[in-house]
Amino acid sequence: MTWSSEASKAKKAAQAKAIPPEWYIPKDKLPPESVKNVTGFYRTCGVLNQSEIDIVDLQPDVLLSKLASGSLTALETTIAFCKAAAVAHQLTNCLTEIFFDRAIERAKYLDEAFKKNGNKPVGPLHGCPISLKDQFQIKGIECNMGIAAWLGEISERDSVLVTILNDAGAVLHCRTNVSQALMFQFGETDNYVYGKTCNPYNRTLTCGGSSGGEGALVALHGSVFGVGTDLGGSVRIPACYQGLFGLRPSLHRFPYAGARNTLLGLEGIASALGPLSRSLDGITAFSKSVIDGEPWLLDPKCPEIPWRQDMLEMKDKKPVFGVTYWDEIAMPHPPMRRALSMTVDALKKAGYEVVEVKPFKVAEAVSLVGELYSSDGGEDLSRTFAKSGEPWHPLILTAGMDKKLSVWESWQLNLKKDDFREAYLNYWNKTRELTSTGKPIDGLLLPPSVSTAHVLDKWHQYLPYTAFFNLVDLPAMVIPVNASVDPELDPVDTSYQPASDLDAAIQGCYSPEVYENAPLTVQLVGRRLREEEVIGMTRHVVNALEASKV
Amino acid sequence: MTWSSEASKAKKAAQAKAIPPEWYIPKDKLPPESVKNVTGFYRTCGVLNQSEIDIVDLQPDVLLSKLASGSLTALETTIAFCKAAAVAHQLTNCLTEIFFDRAIERAKYLDEAFKKNGNKPVGPLHGCPISLKDQFQIKGIECNMGIAAWLGEISERDSVLVTILNDAGAVLHCRTNVSQALMFQFGETDNYVYGKTCNPYNRTLTCGGSSGGEGALVALHGSVFGVGTDLGGSVRIPACYQGLFGLRPSLHRFPYAGARNTLLGLEGIASALGPLSRSLDGITAFSKSVIDGEPWLLDPKCPEIPWRQDMLEMKDKKPVFGVTYWDEIAMPHPPMRRALSMTVDALKKAGYEVVEVKPFKVAEAVSLVGELYSSDGGEDLSRTFAKSGEPWHPLILTAGMDKKLSVWESWQLNLKKDDFREAYLNYWNKTRELTSTGKPIDGLLLPPSVSTAHVLDKWHQYLPYTAFFNLVDLPAMVIPVNASVDPELDPVDTSYQPASDLDAAIQGCYSPEVYENAPLTVQLVGRRLREEEVIGMTRHVVNALEASKV
Repeated sequence: MTWSSEASKAKKAAQAKAIPPEWYIPKDKLPPESVKNVTGFYRTCGVLNQSEIDIVDLQPDVLLSKLASGSLTALETTIAFCKAAAVAHQLTNCLTEIFFDRAIERAKYLDEAFKKNGNKPVGPLHGCPISLKDQFQIKGIECNMGIAAWLGEISERDSVLVTILNDAGAVLHCRTNVSQALMFQFGETDNYVYGKTCNPYNRTLTCGGSSGGEGALVALHGSVFGVGTDLGGSVRIPACYQGLFGLRPSLHRFPYAGARNTLLGLEGIASALGPLSRSLDGITAFSKSVIDGEPWLLDPKCPEIPWRQDMLEMKDKKPVFGVTYWDEIAMPHPPMRRALSMTVDALKKAGYEVVEVKPFKVAEAVSLVGELYSSDGGEDLSRTFAKSGEPWHPLILTAGMDKKLSVWESWQLNLKKDDFREAYLNYWNKTRELTSTGKPIDGLLLPPSVSTAHVLDKWHQYLPYTAFFNLVDLPAMVIPVNASVDPELDPVDTSYQPASDLDAAIQGCYSPEVYENAPLTVQLVGRRLREEEVIGMTRHVVNALEASKV
Repeated sequence: MTWSSEASKAKKAAQAKAIPPEWYIPKDKLPPESVKNVTGFYRTCGVLNQSEIDIVDLQPDVLLSKLASGSLTALETTIAFCKAAAVAHQLTNCLTEIFFDRAIERAKYLDEAFKKNGNKPVGPLHGCPISLKDQFQIKGIECNMGIAAWLGEISERDSVLVTILNDAGAVLHCRTNVSQALMFQFGETDNYVYGKTCNPYNRTLTCGGSSGGEGALVALHGSVFGVGTDLGGSVRIPACYQGLFGLRPSLHRFPYAGARNTLLGLEGIASALGPLSRSLDGITAFSKSVIDGEPWLLDPKCPEIPWRQDMLEMKDKKPVFGVTYWDEIAMPHPPMRRALSMTVDALKKAGYEVVEVKPFKVAEAVSLVGELYSSDGGEDLSRTFAKSGEPWHPLILTAGMDKKLSVWESWQLNLKKDDFREAYLNYWNKTRELTSTGKPIDGLLLPPSVSTAHVLDKWHQYLPYTAFFNLVDLPAMVIPVNASVDPELDPVDTSYQPASDLDAAIQGCYSPEVYENAPLTVQLVGRRLREEEVIGMTRHVVNALEASKV
């Protein structure tokens, strides 16, 4: 079958109609192409009034408490965020399904329920507008994940995540754009249905992928927090590229059942869902609410591990950090190195122990990850794309897809992966030899990527800084350091001697002018299934960074 | 390569030398073939003296407390159990690797440590002799799993389980026999290295499999408890066939890392390790000790779920039971039906609510399980057996092995399995419509098998009563009802109309004479990763059965 873009055009036209006309900004009032940074535009565009601007600017914990007390209604909150999302979409093309009408009905229902309930909220996320990556099915709404063959497929069920968020009182108002088949890993966000999403901090740059639409939307205050998924960095890179908090949790801590995806059934490595937010409180609110929803009663893969507030609060524990400055293959660009140094300095200044931990067999890990992704020889993507005839996006990682393994050979890959995971666990345990406490490190700091947001269509294709932790299945948080690329502080490092041609090529991508205004972040990795501890440690990092500025 | 039995003969000869000559019973003092039940022979054979008999007869909790207080030494305990194991082996051929010498050295070390430690035990299993299925590697000891190609392979590491048991103070004294490649599922225990193991309650019957050596050994008081593994019933059927407690826990609750197996790398369904014991206290002691050993710090697949004593004690909860009398495909033999009725009656008499729960899509489950096992088209076994040329045992389940799936097709199988698991979880949740509490059942009672121990070499090849719960990954306990096949109570049910030819064939296997003295059990299934609750509910069942006898 030959793919035709007609169906996609029709879809885009239908999508455009889902935004009320009065929320459109006239072409001549939109920022011209020369304006790269559009992050403040929602404040001046005239679509949101001042009280709506105030609402979308609230910190998530404040917003949730105002909703819970009734000092904000679900309806006014929902309208404010729908407007901000509409603006965000006009600036970055970040949305897929837009169902503001349904969200507004839902908000009205919640306001009614609040009153009937004696002014009590329906749940911990009462009235909270949340956006979802275009994988999480909502009964009655199309879910095509940007894949042409899936155009027009209306979901017959809710994803378990959607059930739990609804039970918690959330308002779902839109879904967000993705990389084709989610398979650029974290490269960029582009597909043949919805097209490309750009970065609101600098529209010549990408928002990252594959949860890139979430990254752009959340950065533009278009939702309180968004939900992405991460198979190789797909939550963390959009977080990195937009300067957001982004958590890739351990596999199965949050419920994935009923979400669409490619490569489904691949179990040797799998995608985990996680939140992106402008604030750590948003990450916490999402995580606690989902776990309090007892996902193990609905998704058979979720372990029954209730929310451990004590672990988050770390009252009797001052975390000890490890730091890995580079992976000994590709050196992070100067601003990424600065972000990490700032963080380590801040922690040390605040009295934390930070010990250097060398990277562990990164080349082997990368090779394993690639072999796992492509262990079907690309059959899954081939079958999916063949249904519509849509092309393979040039950024799709096809390495290894020329080789079809036998099922038995794929089992041997799983074994190699298991051995690697066990070896890495032992390696982590051995960090006890590095610390003054005689205990292993609690968290490991490292850059989330060699680069921050790169130029559109120019992905460097280097993913180990995130994908390593998908292989070993550890929770990892991206933490903004509230800084961005600075030509004075982040000049090209002319003294650096690249370790290889690959390294040289990656260094060659960098100049502070090209990366203008791109946000900076670090990554913090914790022990498996200790999401609460990762959040708790992140609070320590954030506080240390704050304190260091005084 | 053509397989020769010479290597196996040499192995058996070496094995024979690992038992001290004075622990051998002269041929003419061994029970003649006509004596089927040999369970009491350790008491009269003369190898164990009275105090040793008393030791191996102790309940595990009493034994452990005597060891912890020093009123029993590790050495005298170890010698007693080594002797009982030696006797058991002579009666049933239940052992593979025998390392009594090493166990005795270990016991001496523990006794020294106890004294040095101010009369304190090394750990919760101080001095406790434990046997392991021939999969759990011990550094420096051969581990061939009854596979000819693996003869002579000395382990270079401890399995994580072995590390944790050693840290808990256990004494490992022997390993036990298995089905070839562990792939008769639970059929029988036989292989071309060690040969066949029989049932000590009736030596014309099988001990079951694939952890059959454990079943026979534990029944003969040859270890305090033993560790088996269960991919389709391989812990539970030996428990059923020997009238033992046997727990198939949820996947990864206990650490499997470093254990040998066939089909390794298959992740869609996998083997879980679990204990067999004559007493529920043995199951509890094993489970608590292993979890208290924090396996998640050594095996990256184990979730961090600490031991939940509250969940076990169920202080604020009277469990509500479901019961499934048959799977609507094959009717359990009369004594198995009696065992279940006895249990339900006892529970009802004791005031428990027991509601009937119909089976859920058993045929689909069975088909899925088979497809998952054979998804490599038998390549794993073919490769392993080809190395030595050993034959395929006629009882190996080869269904589906004629078909090689692509990796992508194996992913579709995983998806079918995921969907099935989710559907079953919802089905379980819906039992809330059956109970008076409005909550779902806590546990589900059903027979562990259509039959108790069947005649050697005559396996009926029917495994859904156990394998279903491997597919949906729920913890399941086999519980002895302290009864055995009784010609008066369990006549052939001539009024029964078989549901199918398969059912008729299975009914045709039964006669009370053939199954003479075979023990009876029931199976109790709980919610995923709630092993403590399964143990707690088992205590309720045991108490109700006890009370009903008064």
